[in-house]
Amino acid sequence: MEKLQVQAGSFSYAVVVGRGAWRALRELDLGKYSSIFVLTEEGLWKRWGKEFARASGLKQYATITVPSGETSKSLRRVERVASALLARGADRRSLLIAFGGGMIGDLGGFVASTYMRGIDCAQVPTTVVAQVDSAIGGKTAVNVGAMKNLVGTFYPPRIVLSDPIVLSTLDARTFRSGLHEVIKHAVLSSPTLFGELEARLDDLVPARAGSLGPILARAAQVKVNVVSRDEREAGLRRILNLGHTFGHALEEATNYRRYLHGEAVGWGMLAAARLAERLGLLRSTEAARIAALIRRVAPLPRIRDLSPERVMSLLPRDKKAVGGQIHWVLPERIGKVRVVADVPASEAESAFRDIQMSDRHD
Amino acid sequence: MEKLQVQAGSFSYAVVVGRGAWRALRELDLGKYSSIFVLTEEGLWKRWGKEFARASGLKQYATITVPSGETSKSLRRVERVASALLARGADRRSLLIAFGGGMIGDLGGFVASTYMRGIDCAQVPTTVVAQVDSAIGGKTAVNVGAMKNLVGTFYPPRIVLSDPIVLSTLDARTFRSGLHEVIKHAVLSSPTLFGELEARLDDLVPARAGSLGPILARAAQVKVNVVSRDEREAGLRRILNLGHTFGHALEEATNYRRYLHGEAVGWGMLAAARLAERLGLLRSTEAARIAALIRRVAPLPRIRDLSPERVMSLLPRDKKAVGGQIHWVLPERIGKVRVVADVPASEAESAFRDIQMSDRHD
Repeated sequence: MEKLQVQAGSFSYAVVVGRGAWRALRELDLGKYSSIFVLTEEGLWKRWGKEFARASGLKQYATITVPSGETSKSLRRVERVASALLARGADRRSLLIAFGGGMIGDLGGFVASTYMRGIDCAQVPTTVVAQVDSAIGGKTAVNVGAMKNLVGTFYPPRIVLSDPIVLSTLDARTFRSGLHEVIKHAVLSSPTLFGELEARLDDLVPARAGSLGPILARAAQVKVNVVSRDEREAGLRRILNLGHTFGHALEEATNYRRYLHGEAVGWGMLAAARLAERLGLLRSTEAARIAALIRRVAPLPRIRDLSPERVMSLLPRDKKAVGGQIHWVLPERIGKVRVVADVPASEAESAFRDIQMSDRHD
Repeated sequence: MEKLQVQAGSFSYAVVVGRGAWRALRELDLGKYSSIFVLTEEGLWKRWGKEFARASGLKQYATITVPSGETSKSLRRVERVASALLARGADRRSLLIAFGGGMIGDLGGFVASTYMRGIDCAQVPTTVVAQVDSAIGGKTAVNVGAMKNLVGTFYPPRIVLSDPIVLSTLDARTFRSGLHEVIKHAVLSSPTLFGELEARLDDLVPARAGSLGPILARAAQVKVNVVSRDEREAGLRRILNLGHTFGHALEEATNYRRYLHGEAVGWGMLAAARLAERLGLLRSTEAARIAALIRRVAPLPRIRDLSPERVMSLLPRDKKAVGGQIHWVLPERIGKVRVVADVPASEAESAFRDIQMSDRHD
């Protein structure tokens, strides 16, 4: 079990990763809260709730469940959760525990940040992506209409508790999808982690979830380092977008139906590595290592049938820059990336076409 | 025109009060924003929009209007405003100007604090209460169901611009209702302001709004001082609740239909002064001066028919304290209040009955 520490200007909190991490909820001194609420999903809580309560020492608490899936990330749901909290007596000294994946973390964080103008929040992520990425950093959000994360807050949790054992009941596809975010963190800044992934990728399966603590902790450390230095994503935090430029475009081009988020990021990293290689930023041997690791995770859903023109038109542009430049996060080598703003669109499109050609789907 | 300064730990902003205050919007360096939006009400903007735009130097902007009244303070409305912002191209570098009374300020502040996780907000309050109180301090909120301000944020505006000229088109009742909050600030900490109010109360009418700058600035200064020292209302900010303990109970007992907020606070201050007098905290001569000034503002809607037992049951209790104590803010003299937690309920009820007896309605 490892205890990492987010240390930003105005706040600090622990990110505890590994078997037994739930025990660390005790560090919050639960006795000081007037009441404790767990926001979660029914099936997940049914499977893990008792174990979490026992490990964390949680005795008196109430659960509030929301339906699985992205549609729960809405202001309407915020209203219902806030009403439920009020009806059950939550006040300013209550604690909200967000027990679930990215959706629960985003929704729970947003509710905690706004209920009576802010109550304490503990994040207990239960997916790979949430454990190494989304539960760390204090970004909360809900969707508005088709627009993901349009409304949200920056609100640091009091603690983040990531026990990998909970990953053992993930379905294989969701689990593997999360591994792309682990690879992302390795490419960003940890050659050691990348090497470990190359050596141990075949062991990374739900059935062996309990032993993943060290690898997850290393991946979480990358995020902890970034947000400790840049809590409001002005600059450095942008590197976390590795693979997300094409990734977002792919998700949007398919109405968020074809890819799990991590899978889109997998394709996005393949394209980013290829683009970096085309631009002479990344050696071919390194690009090949990155590609090989991503492809070993699992076959990715097809991209071959997508129109490159349409994908290019959906690339997220930086609205802070004149003309809406695209800030590409491109690997220079495994463990180091660079943000590049003046990439010719033709090069980006060619990189995408190259990746499409490599898609084995017919 | 006076320029006050909120100076809290992590931020600072100007509160500009007086004729010509709108000019000070220029201090924000409007050129740096990618786009500018005004959240307002249609009738209000029709009357004052052009003048505001001319005075403030606002050239390119879009307005988003919401219906008047408390029902617009909802998460559903937040969703619609956020959608409208998105549809018109608002991004992280946009500015939202909340041009209106307390509802617009609370809603606009909340939207600004959460749209893309926070964009700049300028508050341009257009009622007496908003100018001396609610637009200052960074509290934003919307209602959930019947629960006022259940969901909100602490989010400092970039600037607050209060030109009293806009008060000239308020209806007389709304205008006078706001004067109770001005009196509140005088009782809290400004004997000078109290004396001025005694001397000039009859001049305080919408038709002479343009000349109210100095009095409003003095009242706003009281709020500025309090929030500068206690931005998250832990302790000192509590004194702003003078008159609000009974005030809230009266509003709730009448389903928020009988009293304007300031009127309920007027009754609440009468009761608080009477309670302080009963407890021997406040001399009778001072209590009489406070009562006389409040009664000169205008006849208050009746309280005589309300059940004292019901009103007592609705007094807001402090959930942070064991057993839900009531923290009474009681005047010790004009310009000084004290927070008292151990007031016998029988004394509070007697004070309320005394005030009821003084109600001239039959």
